[in-house]
Amino acid sequence: MKILEMNKGTSPVKVIPLGGLNEIGKNMTVLEYKNDIMIIDCGLSFPDDEMFGIDIVIPDFSYLIKNREKVKGIILTHGHEDHIGAIPYLLKELNIPIYGTRLTLGLVGNKLKEHGIDGKLHTIKAGQTIKIGEFKVETIRTTHSIADAICLAIDTPAGLLFHTGDFKIDYTPVDGEPIDFRRLADLGNRGVLLMMADSTNSERKGYTASERTVGITLENIFRGSEARILIATFSSNVHRVQRIIDTAVMFGRKVAISGRSMVNVVNLAIELGYLKIPQNVLVEINKTKNIPDKELVIITTGSQGEPMSALARMASSDHKAVQIKRGDVVILSSSPVPGNEKTVSNVVNKLFEKGAEVIYSDIADIHVSGHACEEELKLIHSLIKPKYFMPVHGEYRHLRQHAMIAEHLGMPADNIKIMRNGQVLNLVKDKAGLAKEEVPASAVMVDGLGVGDVGNIVLRDRKLLSESGLIIVVAAIDKSTGMICSGPDIISRGFVYVRENEDLMNSAKLVVSTRLDKCYADGLKDWAGLKNAVKDELKNFIFEKTKRSPVILPIFLEV
Amino acid sequence: MKILEMNKGTSPVKVIPLGGLNEIGKNMTVLEYKNDIMIIDCGLSFPDDEMFGIDIVIPDFSYLIKNREKVKGIILTHGHEDHIGAIPYLLKELNIPIYGTRLTLGLVGNKLKEHGIDGKLHTIKAGQTIKIGEFKVETIRTTHSIADAICLAIDTPAGLLFHTGDFKIDYTPVDGEPIDFRRLADLGNRGVLLMMADSTNSERKGYTASERTVGITLENIFRGSEARILIATFSSNVHRVQRIIDTAVMFGRKVAISGRSMVNVVNLAIELGYLKIPQNVLVEINKTKNIPDKELVIITTGSQGEPMSALARMASSDHKAVQIKRGDVVILSSSPVPGNEKTVSNVVNKLFEKGAEVIYSDIADIHVSGHACEEELKLIHSLIKPKYFMPVHGEYRHLRQHAMIAEHLGMPADNIKIMRNGQVLNLVKDKAGLAKEEVPASAVMVDGLGVGDVGNIVLRDRKLLSESGLIIVVAAIDKSTGMICSGPDIISRGFVYVRENEDLMNSAKLVVSTRLDKCYADGLKDWAGLKNAVKDELKNFIFEKTKRSPVILPIFLEV
Repeated sequence: MKILEMNKGTSPVKVIPLGGLNEIGKNMTVLEYKNDIMIIDCGLSFPDDEMFGIDIVIPDFSYLIKNREKVKGIILTHGHEDHIGAIPYLLKELNIPIYGTRLTLGLVGNKLKEHGIDGKLHTIKAGQTIKIGEFKVETIRTTHSIADAICLAIDTPAGLLFHTGDFKIDYTPVDGEPIDFRRLADLGNRGVLLMMADSTNSERKGYTASERTVGITLENIFRGSEARILIATFSSNVHRVQRIIDTAVMFGRKVAISGRSMVNVVNLAIELGYLKIPQNVLVEINKTKNIPDKELVIITTGSQGEPMSALARMASSDHKAVQIKRGDVVILSSSPVPGNEKTVSNVVNKLFEKGAEVIYSDIADIHVSGHACEEELKLIHSLIKPKYFMPVHGEYRHLRQHAMIAEHLGMPADNIKIMRNGQVLNLVKDKAGLAKEEVPASAVMVDGLGVGDVGNIVLRDRKLLSESGLIIVVAAIDKSTGMICSGPDIISRGFVYVRENEDLMNSAKLVVSTRLDKCYADGLKDWAGLKNAVKDELKNFIFEKTKRSPVILPIFLEV
Repeated sequence: MKILEMNKGTSPVKVIPLGGLNEIGKNMTVLEYKNDIMIIDCGLSFPDDEMFGIDIVIPDFSYLIKNREKVKGIILTHGHEDHIGAIPYLLKELNIPIYGTRLTLGLVGNKLKEHGIDGKLHTIKAGQTIKIGEFKVETIRTTHSIADAICLAIDTPAGLLFHTGDFKIDYTPVDGEPIDFRRLADLGNRGVLLMMADSTNSERKGYTASERTVGITLENIFRGSEARILIATFSSNVHRVQRIIDTAVMFGRKVAISGRSMVNVVNLAIELGYLKIPQNVLVEINKTKNIPDKELVIITTGSQGEPMSALARMASSDHKAVQIKRGDVVILSSSPVPGNEKTVSNVVNKLFEKGAEVIYSDIADIHVSGHACEEELKLIHSLIKPKYFMPVHGEYRHLRQHAMIAEHLGMPADNIKIMRNGQVLNLVKDKAGLAKEEVPASAVMVDGLGVGDVGNIVLRDRKLLSESGLIIVVAAIDKSTGMICSGPDIISRGFVYVRENEDLMNSAKLVVSTRLDKCYADGLKDWAGLKNAVKDELKNFIFEKTKRSPVILPIFLEV
């Protein structure tokens, strides 16, 4: 991509993606002009298969910490984890004002409470315009798989920017608040310098179906069913939960809520008025036993097959209040997130084995995506008509496909900026181009309380340990003579079942002793040399006997 | 399921699935009558995410080993790993005759060579009937994603059995050898007591497309393309490789083969006459540099994104002979096997980043399944018209869905036998029912040279080690005084990066020393007690400081 050469003394508006490019998750974008920085979203992502033991992954905040005086605030487009999940970690570094809609901030508030942090939360309404430093941010209602989502039109000294947030085009959203197309068209007419737009579904042709279609499928399932119905879905999809409750009420069923995050979100949504539930519909999950099957719906977490979720525990007869029984109808109102296919399949198998009727997105229209497909992306591009375009939120394949869509609509290839996290796009009047510098934008791994303290060496060790376990060789060495006075002993973990492999372990011990004797005979007494000799000899012996390579750890104690 | 009560002195034919039920992979079925046992297939499966360090999983042979005198032979339906992959391990226990078609045995032969084993291989032709002990086995041509696949009609004293093997119904197979429907109809008219049929695609509606459709897509891609074309597919899909080569020849391109298994299978298939390649079409992969892009096709392994495969190495600039360059067309002629979605996506992203045009099954008809969908299953059921039916080859959800299909076709539910590996189905004249006994049918894990020596304890340790690593506390204790004379020292692996966490490690050491001093002050000197005290204290300290639970291993040496 071209470097933008600038006249001396010109201050560009910098657009710096810190997350969400070449990945699904941890979305975060920084805008900077002179002494002002504003942030859009601050999400987490989940660890990949090689990140052993890692809980979550967050963006690298070091550029913001370095420029802490400049940072004037953060605005959130919606309340999904990949947009708000890293906020507690950001606030521990920078206690900046947070702007967002009511549901979004409600979810952030819960999160901060868990972390024991206070935050300066400023509630805004879709349609409202706020100032964050030099940036004038207009918030516009959009539709997504969570209520109260917004997109952003940002007035900057270089021109108007537009950020879609996550979105789909739902003409019939459950809350009756569709996207304000007229406002988008107005922006397009005014002239947008740069658009950043969601690329998650750019590979999918056509349109994403409306949330209403799920409602229709639900009604068809409920109609005439005499069974107890359990529905697993994403707790944050308040619209879907509302629709399930509406359908339950329509067919005279009570509703019980199961799973910690579902209970939390439902309580929050009731409190904030996003969920409307008639009196006497909700029942405690512990009090469902006496309700006839045909009068009950249970809404639960676990739609991704998470092993500790309420649904997985019900499927494994490991749930206190609910046991799956023959005849139950279980609906997975979700699609497996890439990587979760197997855990979802495990739960489906267990539910079928228990005699439940399982309905999932492969066999019924029981889930719709929250992201725009190709035709919807074309519509947004055609309304906003930006001069420059940066595809965001997606792996490289998604960004590239989104770029192709823009190109097919007539945008010059040079005006499409496929970027990496940490690259800087400079904007000056009517122009956009790459800056020479990059900012740090690594994936920061969180393990327990540790943020960034697990690096590649630790991960490599965890991987090696997971593959073949470890063998410890321990011996005490007399400091006066330099000779072994106790051991060598051999201890293993995760290598073989020792009781059934005593011969192998005894031989290994002999190999070590023999090698040590040879070292002494050769006059070798320095510890590093002894350790290496033992390690190499044992490694070769074990590999020859087993074709495995456990971690080998010689420990010598001086006495 | 009902137990079949039998008259005294009646000998049933026993059908014992040893693998392939409630799982995808390690297909194996045992048939037994009096003193004769025959085996159908002997496949492997791949480890699931929780089987750390395991290479492959094979069936439990203990029932066969216990009855070794009875085992008269094994017949193979086709040459895929999930049907032949465990044969070397079986032969190490029982050197029985192996029957199969030419390509199947060619692939088995390669496998045995790698393991340094001789096998008694007996080549049969589709259509041929052989005797295996008391069983008369008729082999019938079927169509699947590998050449030379057969299904089996087996005459037993209890009646006629039919086993589909893996199959799809391809009316236009590449080799021009469709299923012999007339023969199947004849069998149906004669009366089949029990059918076992492939359930892999039972959840998919409609029909699986013919292999020909892939050929048409290929032609459309080749036509007019000036680019170098790379195609990754399953090496065992000889028909597809033939089709790719035919298309290359049609458009005047040379063909190079890349990847060990692809080279092996192509050589075998040429040798056996399954691949027909005109002279001067094949070129060495190392000699492709001088061939113009538009005159070259590279057929490679790696269609599942396997990190060490030829395609993955090309995508990572880690392949000696081939570098992906801007403008290359890369075709993934495959679908991700469940669980491989992420690795495939990683390779697609890397290829796009290198500037290649990537074509994969999400965006073009460039792959077809090898398994029958619902309508094809209906056809087989309607031709064979079995009295009893056992769905095989699939997870529970697939078996159950297949059972539903049979029920919808009119089969009484009692006649459908959804079984577990190790259960025994007894067949007597016109009757089938469960036997009281079960046979061992666990998943036997292979790790390096070890077969079955990694059990749950070892796996649990590997999992724990992978999550938070380990901390070793080591000390020498004077045997005369019972007091510590060296240490305690603390060593960790996979826990934290020690250099950046010296404070934590020093504090941990202090915690251990303090606890040991307290033990001594309390008069506690037995080793088990000391170890437990240290372990608990350190565990609590580490968890409080880090919210992590590494494996803690106290080692005391007596000097």
